[in-house]
Amino acid sequence: MEPSLPEPEPLRALVQALRCLPSVGIRSARRMAYHLLQHDPQGARQLGLALESAVAHLQHCERCNSFSETRLCATCENPERNAALLCVVETPADQNMIEASHGYHGLYYVLMGRLAPLEGVGPEQLQFSRLLQRAEDGVVTEVILATNFTAEGETTAHYLADMLRTRGLSVTRIARGVPSGSELEYVDAGTIAWAMLERRPG
Amino acid sequence: MEPSLPEPEPLRALVQALRCLPSVGIRSARRMAYHLLQHDPQGARQLGLALESAVAHLQHCERCNSFSETRLCATCENPERNAALLCVVETPADQNMIEASHGYHGLYYVLMGRLAPLEGVGPEQLQFSRLLQRAEDGVVTEVILATNFTAEGETTAHYLADMLRTRGLSVTRIARGVPSGSELEYVDAGTIAWAMLERRPG
Repeated sequence: MEPSLPEPEPLRALVQALRCLPSVGIRSARRMAYHLLQHDPQGARQLGLALESAVAHLQHCERCNSFSETRLCATCENPERNAALLCVVETPADQNMIEASHGYHGLYYVLMGRLAPLEGVGPEQLQFSRLLQRAEDGVVTEVILATNFTAEGETTAHYLADMLRTRGLSVTRIARGVPSGSELEYVDAGTIAWAMLERRPG
Repeated sequence: MEPSLPEPEPLRALVQALRCLPSVGIRSARRMAYHLLQHDPQGARQLGLALESAVAHLQHCERCNSFSETRLCATCENPERNAALLCVVETPADQNMIEASHGYHGLYYVLMGRLAPLEGVGPEQLQFSRLLQRAEDGVVTEVILATNFTAEGETTAHYLADMLRTRGLSVTRIARGVPSGSELEYVDAGTIAWAMLERRPG
């Protein structure tokens, strides 16, 4: 008789469940499970409750598509925001970064992803029609594309720019250039080339 | 007025709770939270339940210290096991690997860690007194040290060997040598040196 691996069922189930986390394989999942059970059962319990609460209480804001506890998120409901500006970002994390910069007071639309044909993520998966409907509310005068400057983020920006411009919307892209506070000597050549190409009157 | 970051409370709580996982920082935690909420809410719910169930139902086996649903684990209760042999491992994962090798039919003691003075993990934290008590049950005739061949695993093995031998127990260490199926050309020099030093009659 083959000796069975001595893993009790709740442990096996936990290791299996941890694998739903992105880029967590079987060994990482085991390490996480042992760590939680041995050193942080309180943290494990809190994580369990936080997961259930988040899944139960979060929805997508009907206007900006970001996560929200209510039908409309606090940002979209804020009357002090400039409703004529709509900034398109890939994720809530990107939105957070823009908020933290204190340099923008318009509204947002969160794509919750980017075009990635190889992963099967196209305009339909990202529900571009919802963005179009949002941008055509009659109040928005400028759509600012703030997707990442990666290959996929750039593709997404180009696609969206074409789509929005054919509807007569004014579209801009956030500036690419030398990062604030950096010395040219330590900036990569591609960034310098773009900063030169997109130079503006000083 | 400073604009508040537009993160709803259940999302903030989830990101915070995910940081209890080993080597997960704030950015990884955010990525995990967005992934679960956007693409795998079912997986998130299951993970939540699995965490609660594991914390509620798992305890340490009184004999081998591994995780168990019952006071004594299935391995320790198995009468077909050779109770004269006690194999000491660092983690349940190591125990699984030894089980999967089908080369051992004795019992185990799982340390749930290894000596790491810099992290504050000493003989007391690992409850070496429990191992001593277990090894001195009058039935065990040989303690096999199967801690890892890392600096910390080796330190642990040396410490345990000293401790157990002074109590008159017979102690062995699993063999270090050339991995099965490997060609000498591709084995590192340290392993070859050890295999040479610990050669045995052919």
